[in-house]
Amino acid sequence: MAYTSKLIEGAVEEIAKLPGIGKKSALRVVMHLLKQEKSATEQLTFALKELREKIMYCKHCHTISDESECTICRDNSRDERLLCIVEQTQDLIAIEATSQFRGYYHVLGGVIDPLQDVGPDALNFSNLVERVDVMGITEIIMALNPTMQGDTTAHYIVHLLEDRNIKVSAISRGVSVGSELEYVDEVTLGRSILSRTPLY
Amino acid sequence: MAYTSKLIEGAVEEIAKLPGIGKKSALRVVMHLLKQEKSATEQLTFALKELREKIMYCKHCHTISDESECTICRDNSRDERLLCIVEQTQDLIAIEATSQFRGYYHVLGGVIDPLQDVGPDALNFSNLVERVDVMGITEIIMALNPTMQGDTTAHYIVHLLEDRNIKVSAISRGVSVGSELEYVDEVTLGRSILSRTPLY
Repeated sequence: MAYTSKLIEGAVEEIAKLPGIGKKSALRVVMHLLKQEKSATEQLTFALKELREKIMYCKHCHTISDESECTICRDNSRDERLLCIVEQTQDLIAIEATSQFRGYYHVLGGVIDPLQDVGPDALNFSNLVERVDVMGITEIIMALNPTMQGDTTAHYIVHLLEDRNIKVSAISRGVSVGSELEYVDEVTLGRSILSRTPLY
Repeated sequence: MAYTSKLIEGAVEEIAKLPGIGKKSALRVVMHLLKQEKSATEQLTFALKELREKIMYCKHCHTISDESECTICRDNSRDERLLCIVEQTQDLIAIEATSQFRGYYHVLGGVIDPLQDVGPDALNFSNLVERVDVMGITEIIMALNPTMQGDTTAHYIVHLLEDRNIKVSAISRGVSVGSELEYVDEVTLGRSILSRTPLY
């Protein structure tokens, strides 16, 4: 496309590198910013700069955090016996949004994936066993993605902790709330029958 | 949503202000930037800053430009008899992408809209008649959006130029190429019948 301006072209190209944004949407963003006051763009670039320069990872659970200890790990009111293991910070945020979990988290930073050369050493396993022991965890909930790699990682963790008396569970898999059975994929539907739950 | 980080929250809020981007997509963008090298974020913020600080409007056609004369107005190889009138720079870019027009443009910066209190004075009409006369325009193509406001603006321009011997046309309206008639809205379909074009 001919943008008649190198500045627009440069901005469109940078914005279109972001996930889920194509060149047409990027142009729409550019035109939007040009219509707004300069301060709107300044606020945006400031927030991005601050984000990228100041972000850290929590030394306990490895989630993305503003400080060396995240707000969840600093929160004493949570249930110290429960630990939820997730792949990435987004998953933690998604689970927090449900308000259904009041324990602590451990963010692996990925899953074991031999085909991509990702072994346990590349993930945040170094302090996991120590945390489990120090905190006195009695139940671990695996909230990993329902993929082969997620399953492999879950089995690795079970193996790591196997001589402890800890209940290990995984989030349930089945049909989504509100979905229509005729459109559910057959693997999910099959699993939902195998792992049916009693009604009374 | 609880983001566990003020920096993430701040960045998500700023990104979600952009058109077509919700909070979930904004979070995806944030996580993407955190995974990339710092330089990726720096390039993005630099491009946006440059864009917002350095952009100008072409003194002839009023399109967004890097200099006081845009690349199209500087291009002597175009057809000086043809002028295409558009509402905004995006429309110019969209028409340029078709490679079907080799004349010059005039960007109004909006359309006349009495309900929104936008009169001709708020638009780039000041040098339109002068341009038409100096360039020796013989045909004007109205490429305004097919709305009441677009039609009002087109009539205003026809009126402005009425004592000149200039052919004025508007881009054709009808069913989109590749569309299925059963899904075309009835106003468009009705118009496409009224303004049918001979096949031979």
